[in-house]
Amino acid sequence: MESTVRRTARATVRRLPERGKYDRAVIDAILDEALICHLGFVADGSPFVIPTLHGRDGNTVYVHGSAASHVLRALSLGAQACLTVTLVDGLVLARSAFHHSINYRSVMLFGVARLVTDSEEKMRALEAVSEHVIPGRWAEVRQPNAKELKATSVLALPIDEASAKVRTGPPKDDEPDYEFPVWAGVLPLGLSMGEPLPDSVLPRDTPVPEYVRRYSRGK
Amino acid sequence: MESTVRRTARATVRRLPERGKYDRAVIDAILDEALICHLGFVADGSPFVIPTLHGRDGNTVYVHGSAASHVLRALSLGAQACLTVTLVDGLVLARSAFHHSINYRSVMLFGVARLVTDSEEKMRALEAVSEHVIPGRWAEVRQPNAKELKATSVLALPIDEASAKVRTGPPKDDEPDYEFPVWAGVLPLGLSMGEPLPDSVLPRDTPVPEYVRRYSRGK
Repeated sequence: MESTVRRTARATVRRLPERGKYDRAVIDAILDEALICHLGFVADGSPFVIPTLHGRDGNTVYVHGSAASHVLRALSLGAQACLTVTLVDGLVLARSAFHHSINYRSVMLFGVARLVTDSEEKMRALEAVSEHVIPGRWAEVRQPNAKELKATSVLALPIDEASAKVRTGPPKDDEPDYEFPVWAGVLPLGLSMGEPLPDSVLPRDTPVPEYVRRYSRGK
Repeated sequence: MESTVRRTARATVRRLPERGKYDRAVIDAILDEALICHLGFVADGSPFVIPTLHGRDGNTVYVHGSAASHVLRALSLGAQACLTVTLVDGLVLARSAFHHSINYRSVMLFGVARLVTDSEEKMRALEAVSEHVIPGRWAEVRQPNAKELKATSVLALPIDEASAKVRTGPPKDDEPDYEFPVWAGVLPLGLSMGEPLPDSVLPRDTPVPEYVRRYSRGK
């Protein structure tokens, strides 16, 4: 049986519902490919949208930050959160201005964040975020010590109430516009990697790890 | 005199305040380079974070959507909004897990959105969004007709209460960790463009416009 999420009212795609997806496999793949998320919450009656790194471990998305952060404090007090990730795959160039669009894959995940207090889960969560950002790095670097763990807060959001929204393919124009004399199609967009820049004080013969040289996102 | 924004409590960068920027030139450049924004608002007590396209015209950021969208309806009724854009410039790979970071440029813009009702402003706003996404396209395509304009809602957010946050440069490690035997530095990330994919029904001899072939973002 295919695993799906709870399709609550707020997690249901209302505009262009045919673009809505509720399969966990689709949702997880988008969460995993997106490098950063935008985390929304309400504090003092005002919405905040904060870009941050995330990582997934099974049914949970983790975000981390300074224990001194008012963002993480607000969220750990049981505030509702909306975590959104978006991958832009291309510009969709139609004949009419109206039908221009983008190809994208996004996920919106709703829920109440839980402050991770168990030190083993906290360490696993930090590893999940690190492996999400750059797989292979965690095992090679100096691990967090007790002081650093204390200075770091981790929040957990279950993948329960969520939806994905996906647009793919060419432009869809109104029938009469197909005669309009303009180029139409898709300009694919993606993530590019530059040449790794070694830290200026790094010993010259330090090899660039394979996981840095061959960095890519998605499968 | 340098133009700056209003530095209210919510628009002030509290974590790592040295990364906060309040110059309009910095804020505008980030807003202009970022292809999409994430728009946050509260509806029925729940935060929502919606990815959408935006465009800037002077002191105003415009977003557009279907007139039938509950998002735009909620926002046009005077709800507070937070519009965030984020550019990821690189992975910052330190010797310790703790000091890993990313190089980024982000803007958070707060305020109450105004529904654009004047038809001239609406058309200018749609052009601003189109020119933001792909400069040069607007003049070549079939312009919006009365029915399409009616089906489209446009919201305006003044660039007034805002901040940018910027991290650049190499990793900063704790002194003893500089001996740790691991590669350290920055992996630059950016946006890549693929080969333009013509719509399958496009006449074969339709030239790919210069603004598509040479698409790039930022200056």
